[in-house]
Amino acid sequence: MGNITIKLLAKELNLSTAAISKALRDSHDISAVTKQRVLALAAKLDYTPNPYAGSLRRKKSKTIAVVLPEVADSFFSLAINGIEEVAIEKGYHVLIYLSHENFIREKAILKDFQSGRVDGVLLSISAETNDIQHIQDLCNKDVPLVFFDRVCNDIPTAKITTNDYESGYAATQHLIDNGCRNIALLSISNSLAISNKRMEGYQQALKDNGIEYDAANHLLCSNDVLKNNEEIKKILLRKKRPDGVIATVEKLTTAIYLVCKELQLNIPNQIKVISFSNQASANILNPSLTTITQPAFDMGKAAASILFKALEKKNFILKNESLVIPSTLTIRESSTNS
Amino acid sequence: MGNITIKLLAKELNLSTAAISKALRDSHDISAVTKQRVLALAAKLDYTPNPYAGSLRRKKSKTIAVVLPEVADSFFSLAINGIEEVAIEKGYHVLIYLSHENFIREKAILKDFQSGRVDGVLLSISAETNDIQHIQDLCNKDVPLVFFDRVCNDIPTAKITTNDYESGYAATQHLIDNGCRNIALLSISNSLAISNKRMEGYQQALKDNGIEYDAANHLLCSNDVLKNNEEIKKILLRKKRPDGVIATVEKLTTAIYLVCKELQLNIPNQIKVISFSNQASANILNPSLTTITQPAFDMGKAAASILFKALEKKNFILKNESLVIPSTLTIRESSTNS
Repeated sequence: MGNITIKLLAKELNLSTAAISKALRDSHDISAVTKQRVLALAAKLDYTPNPYAGSLRRKKSKTIAVVLPEVADSFFSLAINGIEEVAIEKGYHVLIYLSHENFIREKAILKDFQSGRVDGVLLSISAETNDIQHIQDLCNKDVPLVFFDRVCNDIPTAKITTNDYESGYAATQHLIDNGCRNIALLSISNSLAISNKRMEGYQQALKDNGIEYDAANHLLCSNDVLKNNEEIKKILLRKKRPDGVIATVEKLTTAIYLVCKELQLNIPNQIKVISFSNQASANILNPSLTTITQPAFDMGKAAASILFKALEKKNFILKNESLVIPSTLTIRESSTNS
Repeated sequence: MGNITIKLLAKELNLSTAAISKALRDSHDISAVTKQRVLALAAKLDYTPNPYAGSLRRKKSKTIAVVLPEVADSFFSLAINGIEEVAIEKGYHVLIYLSHENFIREKAILKDFQSGRVDGVLLSISAETNDIQHIQDLCNKDVPLVFFDRVCNDIPTAKITTNDYESGYAATQHLIDNGCRNIALLSISNSLAISNKRMEGYQQALKDNGIEYDAANHLLCSNDVLKNNEEIKKILLRKKRPDGVIATVEKLTTAIYLVCKELQLNIPNQIKVISFSNQASANILNPSLTTITQPAFDMGKAAASILFKALEKKNFILKNESLVIPSTLTIRESSTNS
């Protein structure tokens, strides 16, 4: 059966399209008898209202968008679960958009939202995002937006983050406590606030322990897996080889482990490893992985809850609703003396 | 700046809203000079057309939907990358919807598509999906739909799958070749075609090797992680303890490894393990994991390519376009004699 339209219903019932439309909207202009006839035929013919037409009236799409760099990371997949738990309860659809760490793509996605496709946006920016004009533009169109994890401090809206500075500090201090003096830090961006804060925590911990920061120990990784492996290998082949490594994103863990395997470097005896990671398999790696475990599910849930407050209450001030949920250091074999 | 509407443009230029609308659509009814005035002002005021209004005319949302059980599985995150590679080239947005293995949620998502929110759908059904009426209903509305991985054989459309029967057979034969005689199979559904085919391959391999199938060796797992761990533990504590385990989905790998660790069962000496898995960390697990590696990226790419053919060509027959892309057995430490 083809698409059933209001026009067809009108023809079948010998009514005007306006009358059909009003009857479907339960308007007071239409008698109860007529409404019943319309609804009965609509049900019989399996009529589905066109949401685009409906949206013009309602101005509500009953959907929120989540814009993420990627889903192949446990942090983001757990955050999505937290977001969906809230959205489903509210009867909303969740659309997930991926920027793949690409600024141009993120810009195109946000541009698409300007015209009312979604009622609100949860955003974790790409590693490339320096310019924030596209985010500013969306906010200017009065589309409610909440940041989680990867935020832009210059945009005045709610931001759900974890304690990145303290976590960077704790990871570094833990390695120092276990005898490391030459610790490499692997990150994915020089502009992301989370990367910078982790880096600051790392540098402060070094300083507080009387260890000089060595710029050669900071590696900026990319989206290119093979290139990352090569760069990590170079660092681990340096004469002054690091005795500890902090991976500030989950995906770099596999790279570090594989390079150590290839170079026959024993973890943790020759080099200690700690990752910012939520991967369920941390415990079954060889050796099991010490992690900074982020409250991914709770961060997603909090971000969605605040967004829905803004959707439900007029004059709700998003920028007053920022929240920091702390991460946890989970100590396993990869960072301790065996 | 608030929302710029056609009404506002009309007022500013002293034209009718109909004229503005026609000018923006590049209609022949409007003179070139007027069109230029309208476009210049629209650009100056950063006018964004309302996509819902536009869609009523175009009947194109320039978006496709991907409906998946979950994203915390490397198969699906890689498949998404394959889908997006094609969609981005075509200038389409990809919306990802998660069913969380829940039939009711999958039904609600597909219902939402009936009204034209997206131009086409890529679907991998939930483990709970037995009834296919919701999929039939969507197809009846002429929304092009392509299945990938988890398909419904009763719906006449394109299906991109891998060789699940052969993979189930190969996994089983590999364990038998390495000395196993009592092999457990862990699956997540009694109704999914992929689960059934893997099971059939497993049973046929047992038969071909003169090993009787033992129903107690088949464990149906759920979405409940703790319950799965308990059930796996029960199987591994049986008097007639399995000497091999096949996990037909990736997420069960961690459960098997953790239970073996708890029960102090050595993999591979006391029990051999093989998983249907695309996880990058397979190589760094303790011990490294033998996998049936599915062509996830290629399956996503193929599914999207076929969907776009249907979107671009009238009278394109989707049901003639099914494709089977084979999986690979990657042998590592977890299944071989050390």
